[in-house]
Amino acid sequence: MATRPAIGIDIGGTKIAAGLVSGTGEVLHRLVTATPGHSEPEVEAAVVDLVRAFSRDAPGAPVGVGAAGWINPDTGTVLFSPHLAWRHEPLRDRLEERLGRGVTVTNDADAAGWAEWRFGAGRGEDQLVCLTLGTGIGGALVLDGALRRGRHGMAGEFGHQMLVPGGHRCECGNRGCWEQYASGNALGRDGRELARAHSPVAQTLLAAAGGQPEAIDGELVTRMALAGDPASRDLVAEAGEWLGIGLANLAASLDPGTFVIGGGLGSASPQLLETAEDSYRRHLTGRGYRPYARVVRARLGADAGLVGAADLARSEAR
Amino acid sequence: MATRPAIGIDIGGTKIAAGLVSGTGEVLHRLVTATPGHSEPEVEAAVVDLVRAFSRDAPGAPVGVGAAGWINPDTGTVLFSPHLAWRHEPLRDRLEERLGRGVTVTNDADAAGWAEWRFGAGRGEDQLVCLTLGTGIGGALVLDGALRRGRHGMAGEFGHQMLVPGGHRCECGNRGCWEQYASGNALGRDGRELARAHSPVAQTLLAAAGGQPEAIDGELVTRMALAGDPASRDLVAEAGEWLGIGLANLAASLDPGTFVIGGGLGSASPQLLETAEDSYRRHLTGRGYRPYARVVRARLGADAGLVGAADLARSEAR
Repeated sequence: MATRPAIGIDIGGTKIAAGLVSGTGEVLHRLVTATPGHSEPEVEAAVVDLVRAFSRDAPGAPVGVGAAGWINPDTGTVLFSPHLAWRHEPLRDRLEERLGRGVTVTNDADAAGWAEWRFGAGRGEDQLVCLTLGTGIGGALVLDGALRRGRHGMAGEFGHQMLVPGGHRCECGNRGCWEQYASGNALGRDGRELARAHSPVAQTLLAAAGGQPEAIDGELVTRMALAGDPASRDLVAEAGEWLGIGLANLAASLDPGTFVIGGGLGSASPQLLETAEDSYRRHLTGRGYRPYARVVRARLGADAGLVGAADLARSEAR
Repeated sequence: MATRPAIGIDIGGTKIAAGLVSGTGEVLHRLVTATPGHSEPEVEAAVVDLVRAFSRDAPGAPVGVGAAGWINPDTGTVLFSPHLAWRHEPLRDRLEERLGRGVTVTNDADAAGWAEWRFGAGRGEDQLVCLTLGTGIGGALVLDGALRRGRHGMAGEFGHQMLVPGGHRCECGNRGCWEQYASGNALGRDGRELARAHSPVAQTLLAAAGGQPEAIDGELVTRMALAGDPASRDLVAEAGEWLGIGLANLAASLDPGTFVIGGGLGSASPQLLETAEDSYRRHLTGRGYRPYARVVRARLGADAGLVGAADLARSEAR
């Protein structure tokens, strides 16, 4: 039973990725579909179709769903989802009703962190902080062998610690959140600002965006930095500096042994991680009197969310 | 066995408090002595004398010691203690050798947080963050029934999250740490600054300090605020605003159900806690889509450290 396959579903804003995942974290089969609009019933129908597609190979396999948003793990209700416009959506109950079996619903960053702890870069670490760096910063806390999700399932929203009083406005409504300074969105915003200021240092970046400042986004800045564009490398270095300050703050509160950093941006930019680790070491409180945490890159890539969702469903079903 | 008394010792910078603590958290007997200088052997000798004084009443009782500093809970070594100038001090081994029995050594804020969870304002809360507000901000994390002390025993140093880039210098070496904005030290510094600026609003506070700005400290500002001095109340309100921002940051990361706030300053100023709770609610990420954590005052007062140290020793001895 412990090693039977489980189905993991990762609901993103643009696509839904699904996989049949073995007890050792391997993705045995994989399916992807576009996220159908933003209405709940359409998304639920797409998830049901994906589960049924696997059911020939693995009838009755446990089903785990990861989704961006604040999810109450006790009820499987999505309290708030930024991409899907869900508010107090009883996702688990709806899916269970349609599928006629138990479903586990988890925050996507929690699922990814759990996967890295079980099968990836966090294995063997009993004090683990995982970050999912993309347009924002998602997070997961795996302490002493369990996901710690807080009182209402909303722990790990590290990206919304306020680092800069009166700073950039965040989608969450506050100002100065960490993810406004160390994320894909931050790189894009700063790249566009640099280009719009007609700074000569931004010429190469602007040319790569077809001369349109508004076409500059985090992915382009990351790619141009990898290609050696000095202005893009400066932007990545600045984001890395902020990333490290936030890591130092988390270390003050949590004292993890390891930070695992994944997500699209975390995987794409070795420079970002190097700069962040350097900055973390320069900002850690009590440095000199304590060991440093390891800062390592995630190993499971884009599969982390579905692998973790499947594994959590398997453990709950046990 | 579960309810036999244990001895708790709280080593502070100016005094060492000791108590014989029942299995239900009552302090049956109490002894206090001045902290003898800053040398390790003298402090250890004082602790040994206190333990022996209780041994007639409770021979062989488990001994728990709480001390300010970074303590490796596996080895009982004090890696760094701000008040006692200890560096890599094997406190547990030294005390065990002198006493001929097992000793448990814990960070003082962790001990206090544990006591509030076991017997005080945090009872029944499985997602608890405790703050000890004094000259700085100490903290403890009690999740799912256990103290979470991190990889090296240094979790809970919430006071050293950086909130203000380039802000006030902190004893830890960094700038802009939370405790530079929301602590007794912060109140004292800002009170002195106000007085030295010859601001007419500071006249009452300055008079209460005998006309000497350097005589203004956090305790005086707190007392004058309680007495209704408007300038002192403004200073406390400012500290409370920052306190609430830090609570909102901790809520983003940890999503506790309850914050318990104790320590000398936390106990002395209802205004500080009210302002902090209001600020926390205005800064919480995702407010409107999630419940608020409770913000409550600690119940065990100055006894929390020794009660928690005793109880942790009792659970380890079990």
